[in-house]
Amino acid sequence: MTVEPRPEPVFFYFDFISPFGFLASLRVDALAAKYGREADWRSMLTGISVLKVMGLKPIPETPLKGPYAQRDAERYCRRHGIVLSPPLGSGRVQSRPLAAGRAFHWLRRHDPERAKPVAKRLLRAYWQEGVDIGAPETVMAIAASEGVDGAALGAGFDNGEAALLLRAAVDESLEAGVFGSPFFIVDGEPFFGLEKMELMEEWLEKGGW
Amino acid sequence: MTVEPRPEPVFFYFDFISPFGFLASLRVDALAAKYGREADWRSMLTGISVLKVMGLKPIPETPLKGPYAQRDAERYCRRHGIVLSPPLGSGRVQSRPLAAGRAFHWLRRHDPERAKPVAKRLLRAYWQEGVDIGAPETVMAIAASEGVDGAALGAGFDNGEAALLLRAAVDESLEAGVFGSPFFIVDGEPFFGLEKMELMEEWLEKGGW
Repeated sequence: MTVEPRPEPVFFYFDFISPFGFLASLRVDALAAKYGREADWRSMLTGISVLKVMGLKPIPETPLKGPYAQRDAERYCRRHGIVLSPPLGSGRVQSRPLAAGRAFHWLRRHDPERAKPVAKRLLRAYWQEGVDIGAPETVMAIAASEGVDGAALGAGFDNGEAALLLRAAVDESLEAGVFGSPFFIVDGEPFFGLEKMELMEEWLEKGGW
Repeated sequence: MTVEPRPEPVFFYFDFISPFGFLASLRVDALAAKYGREADWRSMLTGISVLKVMGLKPIPETPLKGPYAQRDAERYCRRHGIVLSPPLGSGRVQSRPLAAGRAFHWLRRHDPERAKPVAKRLLRAYWQEGVDIGAPETVMAIAASEGVDGAALGAGFDNGEAALLLRAAVDESLEAGVFGSPFFIVDGEPFFGLEKMELMEEWLEKGGW
């Protein structure tokens, strides 16, 4: 009896506070499933990759590109019937992504079945319900609403393990060449940006070229 | 008798030394023509937009993004059967784009029918024939091979008019929000990057959304 090897997952890297990462998160599972793959979600921090490693500025603060990126995201939302609330731009408070990332990577280690549902809940809260997900208490409340053991997760925050796990995950993402959100890796091939999902799909279909 | 208003052109902004700009240049005329449009080519300088206005680094010198961009361009070339010569990467000399841009914008003013053919010839020379197009003499020789009056173009270089025209064109591109290469504007809607050509095509087809 031969056992078909399980295909590698589609690695999906995202920053909780990246709008393009959120928009990609709404499609990546279905796209991977279409080709018999799982999407392996990995949160990262563009504050490390873009600002520290690449030495660039946050996109919203980059002249010319900032306004363009906002318009591009809005155009994408119109095309796909997605509503961000509050809308992008001046009114929106930017959350710090550390607590969400720490909880997510702690869950990947200790309660992996709940990691992705909690990430989705956090993303929806931040991008569509106007919730500031910056505070650990908020993240923990959201995690608890998905059935996570709040005491255990709280201990993971308190003893520093969650922070270490996020840091290790960010290091791993940088070693894999990941610099932006969303970023995908399929059988070792990197794809950066929401724009690349169609090309990635072609790659999944053909196995490369 | 009513006269159908002529539709606006597809504005196509590119930097002569941008590989993605070159790759876009190979498709943009046909794409525009499919929707009854002209492609209005406008060379710009990423050395001004990316480095000076946005305060970023050249992509090839940006950690993580540099190697990714090269891989992405190579993958695109394989997919489309395009050969760059010499290949991207270490061996390639980067030309200064000033002379090409000056000649191009001088031609747009004084010999507009030849501007695009000369631009195509310069791009092919640089990207597929290994020619360093940095020197005004090289640019003028290539322009002459396309029938341009070399004495008039030479005078345009010598009296500074070609430089002024390029500078004005770069200013105009920045005012239009153009920051990278390739960059397209369709009826006021901006599209940045080779990746966006399919989306732009949908926009041309539907008239926006």
